[in-house]
Amino acid sequence: MEIRRIAEVLKQGQPEETVTIAGWVRTKRELKGFAFMEVNDGSCMANLQVVLDPQVPDYDTLVQTINTGASVVVKGNLVPSPGKGQRIELKATTVTLYGEADPQTYPLQKKRHSFEFLRTIAHLRSRTNTLGAVMRVRNACANAIHRFFQERGFLWVHTPIITASDCEGAGELFTVTSLDFNKLPRNKQQEIDFSQDFFGKRAYLTVSGQLEAEIMALAFQNVYTFGPTFRAENSNTSRHLAEFWMVEPEMAFCDLNGDQDLAEAFLKYIFKFVLDHCQEDMEFFNQRIDNTVLETAENIINNEFGRITYTEAIALLEKADRQFEYPVEWGVDLQSEHERYLAEELFKKPLIVSNYPKDIKAFYMRLNDDDKTVAAMDVLAPKIGEIIGGSQREERLDVLENRIAQMGLPPEDLWWYLDLRRFGTVPHAGFGLGFERVVQFMTGMGNIRDVIPFPRTPLSAEF
Amino acid sequence: MEIRRIAEVLKQGQPEETVTIAGWVRTKRELKGFAFMEVNDGSCMANLQVVLDPQVPDYDTLVQTINTGASVVVKGNLVPSPGKGQRIELKATTVTLYGEADPQTYPLQKKRHSFEFLRTIAHLRSRTNTLGAVMRVRNACANAIHRFFQERGFLWVHTPIITASDCEGAGELFTVTSLDFNKLPRNKQQEIDFSQDFFGKRAYLTVSGQLEAEIMALAFQNVYTFGPTFRAENSNTSRHLAEFWMVEPEMAFCDLNGDQDLAEAFLKYIFKFVLDHCQEDMEFFNQRIDNTVLETAENIINNEFGRITYTEAIALLEKADRQFEYPVEWGVDLQSEHERYLAEELFKKPLIVSNYPKDIKAFYMRLNDDDKTVAAMDVLAPKIGEIIGGSQREERLDVLENRIAQMGLPPEDLWWYLDLRRFGTVPHAGFGLGFERVVQFMTGMGNIRDVIPFPRTPLSAEF
Repeated sequence: MEIRRIAEVLKQGQPEETVTIAGWVRTKRELKGFAFMEVNDGSCMANLQVVLDPQVPDYDTLVQTINTGASVVVKGNLVPSPGKGQRIELKATTVTLYGEADPQTYPLQKKRHSFEFLRTIAHLRSRTNTLGAVMRVRNACANAIHRFFQERGFLWVHTPIITASDCEGAGELFTVTSLDFNKLPRNKQQEIDFSQDFFGKRAYLTVSGQLEAEIMALAFQNVYTFGPTFRAENSNTSRHLAEFWMVEPEMAFCDLNGDQDLAEAFLKYIFKFVLDHCQEDMEFFNQRIDNTVLETAENIINNEFGRITYTEAIALLEKADRQFEYPVEWGVDLQSEHERYLAEELFKKPLIVSNYPKDIKAFYMRLNDDDKTVAAMDVLAPKIGEIIGGSQREERLDVLENRIAQMGLPPEDLWWYLDLRRFGTVPHAGFGLGFERVVQFMTGMGNIRDVIPFPRTPLSAEF
Repeated sequence: MEIRRIAEVLKQGQPEETVTIAGWVRTKRELKGFAFMEVNDGSCMANLQVVLDPQVPDYDTLVQTINTGASVVVKGNLVPSPGKGQRIELKATTVTLYGEADPQTYPLQKKRHSFEFLRTIAHLRSRTNTLGAVMRVRNACANAIHRFFQERGFLWVHTPIITASDCEGAGELFTVTSLDFNKLPRNKQQEIDFSQDFFGKRAYLTVSGQLEAEIMALAFQNVYTFGPTFRAENSNTSRHLAEFWMVEPEMAFCDLNGDQDLAEAFLKYIFKFVLDHCQEDMEFFNQRIDNTVLETAENIINNEFGRITYTEAIALLEKADRQFEYPVEWGVDLQSEHERYLAEELFKKPLIVSNYPKDIKAFYMRLNDDDKTVAAMDVLAPKIGEIIGGSQREERLDVLENRIAQMGLPPEDLWWYLDLRRFGTVPHAGFGLGFERVVQFMTGMGNIRDVIPFPRTPLSAEF
């Protein structure tokens, strides 16, 4: 008995074919002498309609015990469907009920549930239309990312999750330890003695794989990371997760222009791939969640991204006929309201802003000849703001050492990062893409907790 | 100036073509009036030979300052190579030296370095032949894994890294915390009060995504995880890492036979993919690291895997005309020596052993009708032993509750796992593959620390 997927049967199944499908019952209806079940197996949003007549063995028991949420395997013959919206349906010859779902206790009855409620049953919510579609789109995005880079000869490199370096300084770090909290070792100065911890020093969860990706780019030219990253930031917002996935390509012999070219090609590829592979799901999001998502995706795919410098962006913002909450002047970081004004209202398409003031950017970004700006870039997209942040990296040993000293970072922790500039250094560049942000952008889902299977947030690590 | 990759130039470049390549100098030789550089860009093991004559601008300075490890961009014309082992070489017209590498201090001079030494310079070791080949094979394995599952309609699901559950019980756990170690909150019983920690309870690094993958399989039928997992085991061996990558497929409406079929097809696919895509690297491993790796790979690809039960395996071991260090009798766990005897000597091919005694296996494995064994399986491969472990999961609520009680696990922590058996439960099965083990197996590398870019082991989290 070969089980076929419902997506494939709905697309390619022919009348009179005998097929077996397996899935979960979304609804059951009884008419006089017949019963109908809508069965979903997660392969697509659409259900397959199954018709049961009294000749099906155990008809009466089945019709009584099958309810929303029950799991069934159905063997039968495909027949043309008289109903609208479906080409074929399945006339059952045998139905096996594997697991019941008591209508009194099964939380997913056929009605609208709030996303807040669904988060409390994250072990069941992927069985709903919306979360099912989110996870399929998420998978398609992830698949697109690997395909994009592999087609171009980039190596997927696994940078470490546990790190002893806190140099990125991108906010709060989680500590990873195997010390016994009740017998914490202390040194002579009465400080916690992390030399007795598992790694012989204090260890953290990574906030970025970039520095290690640079190592690999200086051996393989083009590489990318795609893995989990962490922030111990106590932000209970719809935009923050303590654990999220990030993509970070890194290219040797590449400058900020090449970096921008890659970012643009990359975003276009992902969006096109998802539109091509998740048409039904994307139409659902457009109808039910945000009626601009298809338009926004087309906008990304079909427009050449705008490219301006930070200095030009500030001039445009100063000329804007509007009051911003955060006033604008050269040197300030762009706020979300500024980014959205530029991308949504002024350019009406994705926009790359480059060459930011050095004082608001990280130590590893390449200092420009003006000595005031660094070769950084942000990709701003209509409706979402910053979606990618990247830079050309400082490849000159003396300049980098100066920046590290100015910013008060411990050079001894960065000995290997400096070595990369000592031995065969090259211009190189890369960027970071928050994976969940892309899925949000794609689907129009308002809360980042609804685009990852099991969100980790303050006071929440259930499932 | 479009930079072409050396792998592609070596394969497809034609004499008289003008090309630009970029990479790192492996060796430089001067002859009277000429200089030769071997340049590598990480795209393949082979170097491109570059010929410099005095007409190249700055010839004298270049020849003096370019040493092993220097980074260069070379523009020139391809010419047929008179040397053996190479079809073409590059006659330089211009050479740009980006970064020097001082022969007095650059650690990677042209000589054999021990793998132990190379681990201390993990930021440079990927520039060596062996580690370069390892990382390319690692990428090919990873790519093969995604392709295998995506072609078959499995969704890649991201199960959480941070978890509040320690139910898998697969050894020691790392704690993840943002508590201040110098001001640890305590409750009235003077215990550490993890309710004040970031997640409101004690949190750990995951040891497996399986339980969450089951959630997703019961919505999407077929899913897989591929991500980092952790063990705080103080094992300083060549087989253990504190952080490693694992692949865990999970299939609904699938029993132990289907699980075995998938495992066999999966391993064959990975090995074939790598042989097809990394021919040169695999020949290197076969010549320089372990002269059986090609044979072993062909053995996996071309043989139907053996399939026996644990009970049959014990009988075979009891009949063996040899003394095992660990004596064999029904009920004991198979040791590495037993597994290798079965796969290498008796079957001489991969072998799947199924239906192990319940007392040596995890709580979630499906109890067989004999009430003594569970529907578990291990795939044993010649030369490496266990490479995959899997099982059909217990889908019957009452049986699972009994097992949880017998094993003294806290059912309240598993409420959602039990819910999966309450609502639309189905037979389902899956397995786990240690990703680094596969890369070791493929390449013949003896130490697991040499098949991951930045190994995390006791007292070591550098880079």
